[in-house]
Amino acid sequence: MPRARELGLVGPGLPPGPLNAITDVAGVLVGHATLIAGEGALRPGHGPVRTGVTVIRPHGGNLFRDKVPAAVYTLNGYGKPLGFEQVRELGLLEAPIALTNTLNVGLVADALVQAAIEASPEIGITTSSVNVVVGETNDGYLNDLQGRHVRAEHVRAALASAASAAGGPVAEGSVGAGTGTSAFGWKAGMGTASRVLPPQAGGYTLGALVQANFGRAAQLTIRGVPVGQVITPPRDDPGGPGSVMIVLATDAPLDARQLGRLGPRAGVGLARLGSTLDHGSGDFVIAFSPAATVPHTPPALTEQRAVVVDEARLTKWLFPAVAEAVEEAVLNALCAAENMVGRDGHVRHALPVGEVARLVAAHQA
Amino acid sequence: MPRARELGLVGPGLPPGPLNAITDVAGVLVGHATLIAGEGALRPGHGPVRTGVTVIRPHGGNLFRDKVPAAVYTLNGYGKPLGFEQVRELGLLEAPIALTNTLNVGLVADALVQAAIEASPEIGITTSSVNVVVGETNDGYLNDLQGRHVRAEHVRAALASAASAAGGPVAEGSVGAGTGTSAFGWKAGMGTASRVLPPQAGGYTLGALVQANFGRAAQLTIRGVPVGQVITPPRDDPGGPGSVMIVLATDAPLDARQLGRLGPRAGVGLARLGSTLDHGSGDFVIAFSPAATVPHTPPALTEQRAVVVDEARLTKWLFPAVAEAVEEAVLNALCAAENMVGRDGHVRHALPVGEVARLVAAHQA
Amino acid sequence: MPRARELGLVGPGLPPGPLNAITDVAGVLVGHATLIAGEGALRPGHGPVRTGVTVIRPHGGNLFRDKVPAAVYTLNGYGKPLGFEQVRELGLLEAPIALTNTLNVGLVADALVQAAIEASPEIGITTSSVNVVVGETNDGYLNDLQGRHVRAEHVRAALASAASAAGGPVAEGSVGAGTGTSAFGWKAGMGTASRVLPPQAGGYTLGALVQANFGRAAQLTIRGVPVGQVITPPRDDPGGPGSVMIVLATDAPLDARQLGRLGPRAGVGLARLGSTLDHGSGDFVIAFSPAATVPHTPPALTEQRAVVVDEARLTKWLFPAVAEAVEEAVLNALCAAENMVGRDGHVRHALPVGEVARLVAAHQA
Amino acid sequence: MPRARELGLVGPGLPPGPLNAITDVAGVLVGHATLIAGEGALRPGHGPVRTGVTVIRPHGGNLFRDKVPAAVYTLNGYGKPLGFEQVRELGLLEAPIALTNTLNVGLVADALVQAAIEASPEIGITTSSVNVVVGETNDGYLNDLQGRHVRAEHVRAALASAASAAGGPVAEGSVGAGTGTSAFGWKAGMGTASRVLPPQAGGYTLGALVQANFGRAAQLTIRGVPVGQVITPPRDDPGGPGSVMIVLATDAPLDARQLGRLGPRAGVGLARLGSTLDHGSGDFVIAFSPAATVPHTPPALTEQRAVVVDEARLTKWLFPAVAEAVEEAVLNALCAAENMVGRDGHVRHALPVGEVARLVAAHQA
Repeated sequence: MPRARELGLVGPGLPPGPLNAITDVAGVLVGHATLIAGEGALRPGHGPVRTGVTVIRPHGGNLFRDKVPAAVYTLNGYGKPLGFEQVRELGLLEAPIALTNTLNVGLVADALVQAAIEASPEIGITTSSVNVVVGETNDGYLNDLQGRHVRAEHVRAALASAASAAGGPVAEGSVGAGTGTSAFGWKAGMGTASRVLPPQAGGYTLGALVQANFGRAAQLTIRGVPVGQVITPPRDDPGGPGSVMIVLATDAPLDARQLGRLGPRAGVGLARLGSTLDHGSGDFVIAFSPAATVPHTPPALTEQRAVVVDEARLTKWLFPAVAEAVEEAVLNALCAAENMVGRDGHVRHALPVGEVARLVAAHQA
Repeated sequence: MPRARELGLVGPGLPPGPLNAITDVAGVLVGHATLIAGEGALRPGHGPVRTGVTVIRPHGGNLFRDKVPAAVYTLNGYGKPLGFEQVRELGLLEAPIALTNTLNVGLVADALVQAAIEASPEIGITTSSVNVVVGETNDGYLNDLQGRHVRAEHVRAALASAASAAGGPVAEGSVGAGTGTSAFGWKAGMGTASRVLPPQAGGYTLGALVQANFGRAAQLTIRGVPVGQVITPPRDDPGGPGSVMIVLATDAPLDARQLGRLGPRAGVGLARLGSTLDHGSGDFVIAFSPAATVPHTPPALTEQRAVVVDEARLTKWLFPAVAEAVEEAVLNALCAAENMVGRDGHVRHALPVGEVARLVAAHQA
Repeated sequence: MPRARELGLVGPGLPPGPLNAITDVAGVLVGHATLIAGEGALRPGHGPVRTGVTVIRPHGGNLFRDKVPAAVYTLNGYGKPLGFEQVRELGLLEAPIALTNTLNVGLVADALVQAAIEASPEIGITTSSVNVVVGETNDGYLNDLQGRHVRAEHVRAALASAASAAGGPVAEGSVGAGTGTSAFGWKAGMGTASRVLPPQAGGYTLGALVQANFGRAAQLTIRGVPVGQVITPPRDDPGGPGSVMIVLATDAPLDARQLGRLGPRAGVGLARLGSTLDHGSGDFVIAFSPAATVPHTPPALTEQRAVVVDEARLTKWLFPAVAEAVEEAVLNALCAAENMVGRDGHVRHALPVGEVARLVAAHQA
Repeated sequence: MPRARELGLVGPGLPPGPLNAITDVAGVLVGHATLIAGEGALRPGHGPVRTGVTVIRPHGGNLFRDKVPAAVYTLNGYGKPLGFEQVRELGLLEAPIALTNTLNVGLVADALVQAAIEASPEIGITTSSVNVVVGETNDGYLNDLQGRHVRAEHVRAALASAASAAGGPVAEGSVGAGTGTSAFGWKAGMGTASRVLPPQAGGYTLGALVQANFGRAAQLTIRGVPVGQVITPPRDDPGGPGSVMIVLATDAPLDARQLGRLGPRAGVGLARLGSTLDHGSGDFVIAFSPAATVPHTPPALTEQRAVVVDEARLTKWLFPAVAEAVEEAVLNALCAAENMVGRDGHVRHALPVGEVARLVAAHQA
């Protein structure tokens, strides 16, 4: 399945990393668990099931004991993420991030807590409790959303999948938390991309992973071409309250404040695709850097650490890298997804990538 | 069991409502489910259990269909609440608030989702999903925190309890979400209080409900008397990462921005008690007004509504009311709680209210 | 001078108002004072002068006594605006907004204070003081920035100009606060545009006014065409720390929270033009609604007011309207500006609109 | 003139530094310019004048070229400070802080700009412009507020005074920006205090400087004693919209996020004194650390720097230090001020410190 770049859907810009994935950032692991079962009429609690969970581990070690600097940013807050307050206050991630469907946040959070306890049995007994971060989008057009079918074993499977993936390629499209999601009226799902900064910008890597479930059909814009005005899905569901979760990783040693500044630029990536950050779309960014870890039990009050000096303007490269990577990650989600039939016979069609590629090519001078 | 006011622990100020409880705000319902089981050594997952859940319903109807203006405010973000982002964006509550223990947020959220679906089967099928709000504090000194013993049936029981309580008195101390919590080194729990504004301030009522689990023993200050410097618990656990969840309700028709302004004044109430909003204490405020409801399916783009004009300075009374009610609610939690023995034989002693009352009285001129 | 729309630089969307200007919002007044003097080498404090001030009055009356709901939003905070804290707290504008050059904020603020005092002599004597709001961008590439040449008489002239303009067309390009500004490497300045919502969306009007001084030449994108990759200014000044001030007005009776939600969508408009909200660019939004006024001395604690119900989703039209109006306002600034020679012989060229129009047209299918 | 501590008005806590002033933080300089002229009836623009300006320099060098980490925090945003947006975005101070009267912010900002240009002539010509930070409170009960009597020469004098003071004792009471201010119905003004952390907390120093102009007479509480209920000023002006500016400095190498966390704890200090963060009181915190400087022109993208590890819980000492220092700084302002007669014969009386000291002592066991 060709990715967006191979189809000519990505404009010029910074070069991607070897995998063109968030896993180009050393240490980052991604795992999916995909749930597809049943068909026909919706029977709440029974299916059909078109959903899943995706986990992102900033590094392969014990994140509770070795935390990473992180930030959250809300582009449009119509959503139900968990764990944001503590990240805002302390600027740290201490558990893998999980993405899932909207009504499954509770059960997935509980499974993450269980996994954290198993890795660090001291949690809540001899030391503080753990802050888990969960994001979500609403896949209810295809999926039995009320059924909350993602359970502890699926979270466990996604965590194991992340470990076994060993930082390699990331599956895209209708997998994991993207199994039942749609964007711009087409079947979408998970997507990823990365950018490598030039040597004078430290040669750092910036990776993005998106759970794409936003945008109306008419909005879709690719390389400036109003694709959605020309190529439309057989049936559009205008009422779907879409959303997008965006995870950013970089090996640039940004602190929490600096990571937070990446957030608005993720919105730039969405805007390039035609989004207007719609009312019903919970558009959130979680950004982290595994460049330095922060111990749960530090040996001293202070530590020496490399910090990025704002005035050195690494942002000149980082901000475009974020916009580009987010834009391409969404396109990769669209390109990787195939037709899916879900509850009540609802269909989400795959983006006709050949047709789209021709249209986009025709507009380039 | 005398309440703080009867013990002379409350200074002069605005008068309380008839119940001196958050339920003095018309329509507000509170319900608890209390879990106490087992004793002896901690066996994670098995007990001992000293925890629970408390729910607050802004009105007795279907909150998803008739939402209420609301705001959240973070005094110190070291905590794991759920549902804050959407409240920030839309300024509305659409499900009952639940309070519980830290690691139980996921399961309690899932139970709230289930309850919302039962009340409004259209959720996530023919309309948007639902945002549930859950707060927490860490009761792990007495409770098997890792066990996440609060399950769907307990949330259901608390919701039913709220309905049957019919807005009457609110149980305080070691009940519901306060079953296993402590404050200032003493057994604490849930507490509530209210204030009634004078007629020239509209005669509005302001109610507070707290899940008190914060403060070090030495900090406790009552009516300005450094009680914690004189009367100390037999054993203090200095390491406990306490927190406090504060729920505010008012029948003044405040909008979301105005409700948000109540947040810092809840911090004033905590400060009067000796708190310095400690690092490890997740101190959060959720404020709402049931004075007007906002329909999920509005008949028109706009509606006529009474709004409080900032320049009319209702705040002159509202802000002190918040500080007073929060302060008294915490004291009520302390006064209502009795000795409790929890996991590993850990003991939290009841505040010796007689001794405290004498000390405080001695300092008043 | 043809505007962007006449040149084919504006894609399909909502229709503009009669003037395609912020003054399509009933009551809104805009006035400029333009300072152009001297040429040749920079003599700090003496010139050359290429700067000015623009004022926006939400209505023609006494704004201190009859305030309007308002919000501010920061897309990138590298800038020096004044007055934002009080707008955040109270959600009100009580003095005309002024835009000027970066180092002139102090003197312009002082002049606004003086004007407010003259209109309302009670300020600071028998009632509270006044919050003035000033925005700025850096026009130092052409202008003697250090000279702070905008003085009280210029602010007074701009205020008078606003009054005499009577809500008619708004001068664009190198006028007022845009006299010395540049965008995407070309001479820019002030620009404006508006959108009218359809009847089912209340028929409301949304207007934007921008002080455009942001973007690198290579970024410029119009209707999706990477213009800046093809048509480049004779000389680009890559180091210029640009910025953009965006003022939004609407007659939809939004409250402060709702007005704040327009902010991110102004960023969408910038992103469509190729901006990545660069580090050194102070990108700010000020939004207000003159639909209802809030008296400084209210007759009662509450008042009945029409409020927009979020769930009615006026945002479905409002958010795109903001993105479109901001995008077009910037293009109008670019189209209206002519070549300008400033300090040290620095030149900013006018966008070659004919060439640009042909390029953009060639890319439309 | 005895300070609050000598009068027994300060409870137990951390020890102060040698000067018990913000200048105990190495490098910090404070200077005042005091304007007292005229008496009798208010003639706006002519006097009487009871105002001034205070400047705080984080270090004695060129702050534009060597910036310091900083944060701002808003307790109640009813105020008109300048420069906050850029501090929020970049976490840096690059010019001395100035405090003055409300309507003088513009002229004082302009004078700071001029001073910055004189020290760094490259500003706005070969490099970016400068962000100046100005705070204010309303001294209009005594002072001809409309007159904006603080001019460039006074700012210059305050800056020179800061330099010549060489980090020694800081004048308190009716000096500088506190010349015309009042708190709790009494004459107040500038006040300062400091705290030294124990060796196991790094031995760091935390200093506070306040421009105290807040609080109603009945609220005043000292060491828990409701002084304002017993000792009242001969005449209270209930309508005065007071405010307080709080400047915090520490040599602990906090980053911007961590400095921001000091803000709520400054509010704790105010609450201990009886404040409820009243509606009309603009209560703001500016915090900085001169422990490390950040060059305007950094030699590399990153630098090694000591950072405080949150998990090491320096906050256990820092947060109480902030609350204590702010509380004591306000008391020092009250103790240092003498009776002042201002415009229209308005009188603010000095706190009767002897009487207060006796009352407070009587309540200590």
